[in-house]
Amino acid sequence: MLPKDADFQPVSGMKTPRFAALPTFMRLPHVNVDSADADKLDIGIAGVPFDSGTSNRPGPRHGPRQLRDLSTMIRTTHPRTGMNPFALVNCADLGDAPVNPMDIMESLDLITGFYDQIHERRIVPLTAGGDHLISFPVLRALGKEKPVGMVHFDAHTDMNDVYFGGSKYTHGTPFRRAIEQGYLDPRRTIQIGIRGIKYDASDFDWALEQGVRIVEIEELFERGVVDVMTEAREIVGSDETYVSFDIDSIDPSFAPGTGTPEIGGFTTFQAQQMVRALDGLNIIGGDLVEVSPPFDPTGGTAWVGVSIMFEILCVLARARDARS
Amino acid sequence: MLPKDADFQPVSGMKTPRFAALPTFMRLPHVNVDSADADKLDIGIAGVPFDSGTSNRPGPRHGPRQLRDLSTMIRTTHPRTGMNPFALVNCADLGDAPVNPMDIMESLDLITGFYDQIHERRIVPLTAGGDHLISFPVLRALGKEKPVGMVHFDAHTDMNDVYFGGSKYTHGTPFRRAIEQGYLDPRRTIQIGIRGIKYDASDFDWALEQGVRIVEIEELFERGVVDVMTEAREIVGSDETYVSFDIDSIDPSFAPGTGTPEIGGFTTFQAQQMVRALDGLNIIGGDLVEVSPPFDPTGGTAWVGVSIMFEILCVLARARDARS
Amino acid sequence: MLPKDADFQPVSGMKTPRFAALPTFMRLPHVNVDSADADKLDIGIAGVPFDSGTSNRPGPRHGPRQLRDLSTMIRTTHPRTGMNPFALVNCADLGDAPVNPMDIMESLDLITGFYDQIHERRIVPLTAGGDHLISFPVLRALGKEKPVGMVHFDAHTDMNDVYFGGSKYTHGTPFRRAIEQGYLDPRRTIQIGIRGIKYDASDFDWALEQGVRIVEIEELFERGVVDVMTEAREIVGSDETYVSFDIDSIDPSFAPGTGTPEIGGFTTFQAQQMVRALDGLNIIGGDLVEVSPPFDPTGGTAWVGVSIMFEILCVLARARDARS
Amino acid sequence: MLPKDADFQPVSGMKTPRFAALPTFMRLPHVNVDSADADKLDIGIAGVPFDSGTSNRPGPRHGPRQLRDLSTMIRTTHPRTGMNPFALVNCADLGDAPVNPMDIMESLDLITGFYDQIHERRIVPLTAGGDHLISFPVLRALGKEKPVGMVHFDAHTDMNDVYFGGSKYTHGTPFRRAIEQGYLDPRRTIQIGIRGIKYDASDFDWALEQGVRIVEIEELFERGVVDVMTEAREIVGSDETYVSFDIDSIDPSFAPGTGTPEIGGFTTFQAQQMVRALDGLNIIGGDLVEVSPPFDPTGGTAWVGVSIMFEILCVLARARDARS
Amino acid sequence: MLPKDADFQPVSGMKTPRFAALPTFMRLPHVNVDSADADKLDIGIAGVPFDSGTSNRPGPRHGPRQLRDLSTMIRTTHPRTGMNPFALVNCADLGDAPVNPMDIMESLDLITGFYDQIHERRIVPLTAGGDHLISFPVLRALGKEKPVGMVHFDAHTDMNDVYFGGSKYTHGTPFRRAIEQGYLDPRRTIQIGIRGIKYDASDFDWALEQGVRIVEIEELFERGVVDVMTEAREIVGSDETYVSFDIDSIDPSFAPGTGTPEIGGFTTFQAQQMVRALDGLNIIGGDLVEVSPPFDPTGGTAWVGVSIMFEILCVLARARDARS
Amino acid sequence: MLPKDADFQPVSGMKTPRFAALPTFMRLPHVNVDSADADKLDIGIAGVPFDSGTSNRPGPRHGPRQLRDLSTMIRTTHPRTGMNPFALVNCADLGDAPVNPMDIMESLDLITGFYDQIHERRIVPLTAGGDHLISFPVLRALGKEKPVGMVHFDAHTDMNDVYFGGSKYTHGTPFRRAIEQGYLDPRRTIQIGIRGIKYDASDFDWALEQGVRIVEIEELFERGVVDVMTEAREIVGSDETYVSFDIDSIDPSFAPGTGTPEIGGFTTFQAQQMVRALDGLNIIGGDLVEVSPPFDPTGGTAWVGVSIMFEILCVLARARDARS
Repeated sequence: MLPKDADFQPVSGMKTPRFAALPTFMRLPHVNVDSADADKLDIGIAGVPFDSGTSNRPGPRHGPRQLRDLSTMIRTTHPRTGMNPFALVNCADLGDAPVNPMDIMESLDLITGFYDQIHERRIVPLTAGGDHLISFPVLRALGKEKPVGMVHFDAHTDMNDVYFGGSKYTHGTPFRRAIEQGYLDPRRTIQIGIRGIKYDASDFDWALEQGVRIVEIEELFERGVVDVMTEAREIVGSDETYVSFDIDSIDPSFAPGTGTPEIGGFTTFQAQQMVRALDGLNIIGGDLVEVSPPFDPTGGTAWVGVSIMFEILCVLARARDARS
Repeated sequence: MLPKDADFQPVSGMKTPRFAALPTFMRLPHVNVDSADADKLDIGIAGVPFDSGTSNRPGPRHGPRQLRDLSTMIRTTHPRTGMNPFALVNCADLGDAPVNPMDIMESLDLITGFYDQIHERRIVPLTAGGDHLISFPVLRALGKEKPVGMVHFDAHTDMNDVYFGGSKYTHGTPFRRAIEQGYLDPRRTIQIGIRGIKYDASDFDWALEQGVRIVEIEELFERGVVDVMTEAREIVGSDETYVSFDIDSIDPSFAPGTGTPEIGGFTTFQAQQMVRALDGLNIIGGDLVEVSPPFDPTGGTAWVGVSIMFEILCVLARARDARS
Repeated sequence: MLPKDADFQPVSGMKTPRFAALPTFMRLPHVNVDSADADKLDIGIAGVPFDSGTSNRPGPRHGPRQLRDLSTMIRTTHPRTGMNPFALVNCADLGDAPVNPMDIMESLDLITGFYDQIHERRIVPLTAGGDHLISFPVLRALGKEKPVGMVHFDAHTDMNDVYFGGSKYTHGTPFRRAIEQGYLDPRRTIQIGIRGIKYDASDFDWALEQGVRIVEIEELFERGVVDVMTEAREIVGSDETYVSFDIDSIDPSFAPGTGTPEIGGFTTFQAQQMVRALDGLNIIGGDLVEVSPPFDPTGGTAWVGVSIMFEILCVLARARDARS
Repeated sequence: MLPKDADFQPVSGMKTPRFAALPTFMRLPHVNVDSADADKLDIGIAGVPFDSGTSNRPGPRHGPRQLRDLSTMIRTTHPRTGMNPFALVNCADLGDAPVNPMDIMESLDLITGFYDQIHERRIVPLTAGGDHLISFPVLRALGKEKPVGMVHFDAHTDMNDVYFGGSKYTHGTPFRRAIEQGYLDPRRTIQIGIRGIKYDASDFDWALEQGVRIVEIEELFERGVVDVMTEAREIVGSDETYVSFDIDSIDPSFAPGTGTPEIGGFTTFQAQQMVRALDGLNIIGGDLVEVSPPFDPTGGTAWVGVSIMFEILCVLARARDARS
Repeated sequence: MLPKDADFQPVSGMKTPRFAALPTFMRLPHVNVDSADADKLDIGIAGVPFDSGTSNRPGPRHGPRQLRDLSTMIRTTHPRTGMNPFALVNCADLGDAPVNPMDIMESLDLITGFYDQIHERRIVPLTAGGDHLISFPVLRALGKEKPVGMVHFDAHTDMNDVYFGGSKYTHGTPFRRAIEQGYLDPRRTIQIGIRGIKYDASDFDWALEQGVRIVEIEELFERGVVDVMTEAREIVGSDETYVSFDIDSIDPSFAPGTGTPEIGGFTTFQAQQMVRALDGLNIIGGDLVEVSPPFDPTGGTAWVGVSIMFEILCVLARARDARS
Repeated sequence: MLPKDADFQPVSGMKTPRFAALPTFMRLPHVNVDSADADKLDIGIAGVPFDSGTSNRPGPRHGPRQLRDLSTMIRTTHPRTGMNPFALVNCADLGDAPVNPMDIMESLDLITGFYDQIHERRIVPLTAGGDHLISFPVLRALGKEKPVGMVHFDAHTDMNDVYFGGSKYTHGTPFRRAIEQGYLDPRRTIQIGIRGIKYDASDFDWALEQGVRIVEIEELFERGVVDVMTEAREIVGSDETYVSFDIDSIDPSFAPGTGTPEIGGFTTFQAQQMVRALDGLNIIGGDLVEVSPPFDPTGGTAWVGVSIMFEILCVLARARDARS
């Protein structure tokens, strides 16, 4: 496959060693969203270095930098499909969204503003978090006109109401807020990999009432990933769909660097199969969140993270290409 | 489910962040075994910070502290059964057993004394080790009147005779001693997950002669956990049974922080299923041993450990409740 | 020296090994500030697990727990003076102040409320942070009636005005706010160890205008600690004085686990000499802040921190005893 | 089983603790290849501390030392077969091959020379790398008379042509060179576990053209290890066969300490089953490569490595014994 | 001081948090040396990610990336002089020099070519290594017309002749080669901080014969840094002088992340004083080498490194400004 | 200086890279104490992998192995004196003393027996611990005929009486036992670097009563190392003297990997000067103890340890040579 546009190709690891050069996402050129070059882009990879919504162990604010660092080990050609996403669509690193670590509400506005710009230029965003709260402002930009569907991989529903006696915007609440405010369609939302000891049943109860489909880990293991993903495809259908991938959905033996690990999760191989099964859906954006470098001395979690980001990228590239 | 007794409830992570406050086991109140409050207890969680029985790499003496630390991330409601053990029975942190790291025999007496007190007050003990030798003094207290049965998860039989030309009390010998001295009933004992290159066949031979059932890892993987646990339930029957869980039974990719890792073990998901399968048995105590913080830079092993301790706690709570 | 009150003595490491038992500050009993026992206390050691004021690398929210853990290695008798502070005054661990990691302003109120209680009971507080913003609510409680003086060890002035276009309450601004609001007397404030590349000169300029004395690291090294501390004693005089010790004042080779390290700092030996030189002053409280466990794999920084806390405790004990 | 020769037995961990004594491979005696004792050897374990062929993250030059260190935890008796390889054949640690880290071509000659000596004395070599380039000089010695077959476990084919515009001898090219130069028979070569995002398809295309059988990870998981290993046995047949085991074939959750990890790999249990399935083949040497200590803070990867080396050793011992 | 050119200013940490945005050196814009913007530059900061000259523990190839990462914590204004180098001269990140990790001689040519370009455009280079061999190709570019003088901070002379029986270009030989080939003037070269157990005296003997001044650590500590730096200034005089700073010159307690540590070194404070004492000399380039991330789990060594780089930058800025 | 005996020379790092070959102490040949070669030895370096006397954090049992590993970076020629100890006397690695980690008293006998053998062959021992209790059995062998003097570098006196209500042989008691039993002459004993918060004054009082000279850290810093070492030389005089170096005497910023760190210690440079000042004394043995690898992720502490061991070795070589 020939590269689509020579200006938007990754630096080759066969020429420039992978430890060399500035660490942009997947060694792509850095393009400002308000520059002329941005108009040529199909997909933009951006960081949202924000974790002020974290209830226990912060760290994901450092995620985008470490994900960029490890992403320099990503090559170009998908091992199963042979697809080279960079040959199909123009991709770039859009840099990081603006944030204020001292102010959650201001940050949500800043992030939404950044994604409004991306969305207005019809660039499909692939985001590296940040804690899971950052999915809320992204959805607020992408679901503005009409609520989107979502395939959500996570150990937790993130459908809680409030923390600490009133905090409504935390990394445990984004999807409740997104449903309440009409950016996310609960009946076109499926959550996969949910597990772990609970505070109580209230987050499940609320989500189920809204029509969300929750696939707990035991169901996933019993039915297998193929069967569950067939159902996921039916649930989201052909309308616009978002993919949100919390690294803590994967078992912590594969991805220890995260703030709220839950044992008994699925493998990276299963993660790969599940993301690949999204191929052909009308995916309009995705994120990979909750990678926390301070809790991952080897960087292995970020490597898992960018490997999954590449899988999402391939799905996004096919969807973007299909729409053009 | 309403809490049984407001005085014995964990601090809520929705009110007090999980990183705050003193790290007692599962954020329970600390109760001295010789205090008046102890009479109200059904289950006591205690530490035995002792590893002088370790033949190679010490460290589990630091286990109880790190397990307490990580246990502050445990919530209250079981994800499968919806059971809240703290609503069913009164639980507390009993502190640590007394030990003398310089003197194995004195320590075994001190620990037995501590568990005698617990046992006399009819508190069901859940223990955080320490190396595996600490199961011996616990069994000496619990099995005093009559030998107990045991479901034992481990990579090793811990049925060796002597080390270093004569040492009879090491972390490789506790169950041989417990059988010899009549605290453990070998015909009601099953060992699950055994594997690893051996010194020789003598530990196996002796155990099998006594009537112990050894399920090696290959058999476990071939038959599956459901089938093996059905057999385990039959072996221990309805009499009093102890649960001993060596963290090294789980594959070291999930739990690297232990002194004698063996590759090719079972997953945390399988561990969860197996402990859950003990529900309804007449369990009168349990332990989780061999978590070694110096060999686990991320604390992930202790997190696996306390997650398994919560599973054991739920089984203990049901058994304790059934007996009351 | 005989213990003052047998109920408020640390557990001895000669009896209970240091790795055993619950990790309270310096192995003291835990006493709730609203319990009857609190009335017997002279000094209370408390944690403030809060770092939402951190502009770059969070982590000090985990400080109190790790400081408690390492503090179990603290013994009782000062190596120079032979003083045993626990024989002079009644001390206890007061637990942690309430906080809400999602809400800076609410947290400042919660912390102030906690210290109001301590202050009202005439307990002298020794605080383990948390980031440096936590000194502000402590000063708001202690300096309510009258602004206090301060001896402040730090690499940074923490006298900035705002961050990120408006954030007034961050770990770089506490003392500017405390001076503006009348809790801290700038003419009785000395800052020692200041260094590091600056944003600009505005924090220095403002502080100097208020009358603060800034001793930069070069001046400290040229004059020596004895001379500088003589000046410090003159500046604060005999009125009420607070001690604030930012662990980043010490060179990062001794204390790497902190968010904003600056090379070229003073040694732990110099730190010890400087705190000891506060003996006899009218010290009414102290803190040790910015210990960040996620950036300190060995725990060595927390060990430095609690070693300095013991030095501050001895100074507080003498001052408290002198006032009684 | 009685030991074959008392002079070539491992030090027992029941007598000398595993942390004591010089760390030779599996606690065997150290024998120089040019000494008289070497004539008594059947199998020699050697290190090749070389990683100058590494394209990205060096480190495996430190592999042999860490593998020796961890190998002191290896015992003697195979858990499945009950075989004690040290009772069957005489084994020793041959030390390390000579290398020059500054000069790839000179090193390849030095290593070949070392293995020529081993081969001439009819000692079967088991090698601890080193990066994967070191398999080339070993094959150059063993396949000198006639190309050997190979069972190759890896995430990568290592069949690339050149790197960085001309470098022909790197850790991504050894088997292409070995086939081109007639040391390796491509039609008797099978590669198992291949996966990961590719540069392009050229390494696959070339290998397939030569007749190499590539089993990608998806095929392995679908068919299962028994079926694939049956095919592997057919492919290599009864002629001389080499086993090359790249630690990165195993999933990085089990073996993070390696330079080019690829997610979605097989487990250590599967690795054990696959190596055991080589029993009875005419194996004439083996290696375990790409263990990189600087990227493995816990040493867990080296522990996996030596555990696999023991499995290979048992297969080699049976093959060596069968030939004698 | 007003910024010289708004296009070449660092991103402010008061606006964009330090953990956000792409990690260029000191948050400067990235400028290609062959772009039009390069003509506006006074100083260029570049990485040379090369360590194939390392005789023992590789790692510095990862140095430039980690130095860039940590450099985002550098602010703008010198704490002693109040100087803002970015207000005086135009600075940028020039990216990394091209290298081939498989080929030392080719890499030396590639690096020289890169620095030829920089030099031809009259940009003053500040380099982040890489092992110390990389100083050789830099000097080959800068000293082409006339040998330069050098102030060299190091634990080792790096004046060895050959390693491993013939290797002439290693990280222990660069300055011998530079003197032999006429790029470095030995009579205008001073080496400061030399210490450590030696192979033999040959490197010292050769250097002293050429007229190099060697200040061993004991002399430095006895005379003090002021006195030694006065001599250093006399030795290099007013001619063109290079500054080479090996991080291992600093004591390993401050900078553990390096391949050849030697105990008993100078402090970071002394390092700062010594580099500041170069102010006013005719410095035409500088480097900071041997930072090895795999041996520095906390990143503290890179932080020391970039802090020293800022000191060198200020000296370079003054020298560059003086020449313009 | 020509090597004394070609059979007892270290492997050169100029020929065999330092990461290669078996890690014996300083790359010396391994010689069994009961072999014929042992008769040719002047100095033997041995490990005592024992830490069962540790009251808090075990680990030094792993010390000898890590010290051997790092010692492969030691070269041959002293930087100050130009002395090559291997050219003066015959040195070898004697392996490790036998120990039983389960049995303190048996281990003390085993270790004494090992040192009896060494002493009988007139080999001067240089020992790598192990915790500090191991100095007791060494002194029991060396001081059998007549109590020896001692220069002791430590943060602690190790003159306590009992721990945990009766344990007399711990790492806090060796020198009290050695004095009581007549192996150590208290009037010829000086302890340097003592500091840290105390249990009480009893260890000091007892030692001072026996005539031991204690130089606390403040005195050392005030008088300087030259003055204190002059006194040390006077105290021990010309009779037989032992050197015991506890790594925790050095400040923990230089040597964090130890079980009982005390802040405010001396530097490695000062340590070097002090050991060098022992030159010419009648030193008959030495040890370096309390290096604890599990608490030192970088290995830097072991590097400090072996660097000090080389200094002691030079002093021993001169003393041994003077006696021959």
